[in-house]
Amino acid sequence: MNTEEIRKKIRDGEHTGPTSGIAGDKVQANLAILPKEYAFDFLLFAIRNSKPVPIIEVLEAGEFVSRYAKKSDIRTDIPQYNIYKNGELTETVSDIKKYWRDDFVTFLIGCSFTFEQAILDAGISIKHIDEGRNVAMYKTNIETEPAGVFKGNTVVSMRPFKKSLVDKVTEITNEFPNMHGGPVHAGDPKEIGIRNIDKPDYGDSIEIAEDEVPVFWACGVTPQNVVLNAKPEILISHAPGHMFITDINNEEYKS
Amino acid sequence: MNTEEIRKKIRDGEHTGPTSGIAGDKVQANLAILPKEYAFDFLLFAIRNSKPVPIIEVLEAGEFVSRYAKKSDIRTDIPQYNIYKNGELTETVSDIKKYWRDDFVTFLIGCSFTFEQAILDAGISIKHIDEGRNVAMYKTNIETEPAGVFKGNTVVSMRPFKKSLVDKVTEITNEFPNMHGGPVHAGDPKEIGIRNIDKPDYGDSIEIAEDEVPVFWACGVTPQNVVLNAKPEILISHAPGHMFITDINNEEYKS
Repeated sequence: MNTEEIRKKIRDGEHTGPTSGIAGDKVQANLAILPKEYAFDFLLFAIRNSKPVPIIEVLEAGEFVSRYAKKSDIRTDIPQYNIYKNGELTETVSDIKKYWRDDFVTFLIGCSFTFEQAILDAGISIKHIDEGRNVAMYKTNIETEPAGVFKGNTVVSMRPFKKSLVDKVTEITNEFPNMHGGPVHAGDPKEIGIRNIDKPDYGDSIEIAEDEVPVFWACGVTPQNVVLNAKPEILISHAPGHMFITDINNEEYKS
Repeated sequence: MNTEEIRKKIRDGEHTGPTSGIAGDKVQANLAILPKEYAFDFLLFAIRNSKPVPIIEVLEAGEFVSRYAKKSDIRTDIPQYNIYKNGELTETVSDIKKYWRDDFVTFLIGCSFTFEQAILDAGISIKHIDEGRNVAMYKTNIETEPAGVFKGNTVVSMRPFKKSLVDKVTEITNEFPNMHGGPVHAGDPKEIGIRNIDKPDYGDSIEIAEDEVPVFWACGVTPQNVVLNAKPEILISHAPGHMFITDINNEEYKS
């Protein structure tokens, strides 16, 4: 199946689950939809914090077709959307056509699936994928650079690797500077303000073996977290793990 | 004199002329100030057209101190400002304090002085500088990618070089991808829609000798041109050649 067919299956309600592993080597994207009045602050926040918020595409007010996804419709082509009003999750839906407004600006943001694929391609396994779980994510004390109404700390994703592999996964992910890039930290979680590594703030916890080191990357949940802090009238995002599938090859983001 | 002292001289009206050559190896910046209602469209235009519009810094609504220029005041530290209303130049002033509004967003944009310095440092002379003239600039048929209300073609600057030096100046300027980068064209001006090379649209004309090739770079006049097409209520920019002097070293923009 090509990406256009996958998007159609999602649009038709034939695929409703997470998108991990269903789009081969194609870039999958995080979604953030905001009214235009927040768009400048958000875009500036993204530019100032490109590691956690790597912008793939901005669709202008009212636009819902991605130029990087043939015959796409951003209102229907994601399996599940979360709708937040005034900072609170109010609904999870599979179609946002009835919520759509002409002043909605859509941001597509890079996702760690891209660099994870590169790690897998290098013959290195990733524990949470092997175990069929969501990646563990944590709030940290790493400050972002604020912009307008948006401020808050970086959220990171964590993957445990054997000590001997840390340099290698660092090297591989450094090659994707516009897809979160290399790790922001490896080793003691306390150094970045994580008190209990067994209790992630998002996603599923994962065991860290004796000979493994927790490695942390800036995570695309950061912008969602920061936006919700500002309690905008409305934010629509993808439900975790339910991404927008583009026609771009992951390799195109390799530096 | 350090850059803080130069800015003070400008602020105090002791330096009122062009800034070319007065700030050594420090980055000089083009200025564009717009009401916040245009800020998202402009920032998106800049991201989509980073070659002609390389953003150095965005000062949020009402801010007038650059983080890249100690004790600076964007309202006074440029020798001459052009004020455009509804797309027309209405005034040239040395201080914009009385025009200042809390919804003004300031964009500092890269300028060719940075890569010109690198060319000079390589021992290659630049004709218009030797002759004490402004660089020749032309409207072209090279389309920019529109964003919101902003659309229009690329403006280029032209410098003639001996054929044997074209590869070298290309190589040098390629090293500044976030300061206009390498040439967009070298050779026949007609190929990029320039009908009369002797009549630049901005700046001063310059002779191209028999053994010289005209080399064209994307120019920071592009955003000004594109903004004026949209006839915003107000745009404040620097007068040509009268730039904002930062504390950043040109070398920091070398890739």
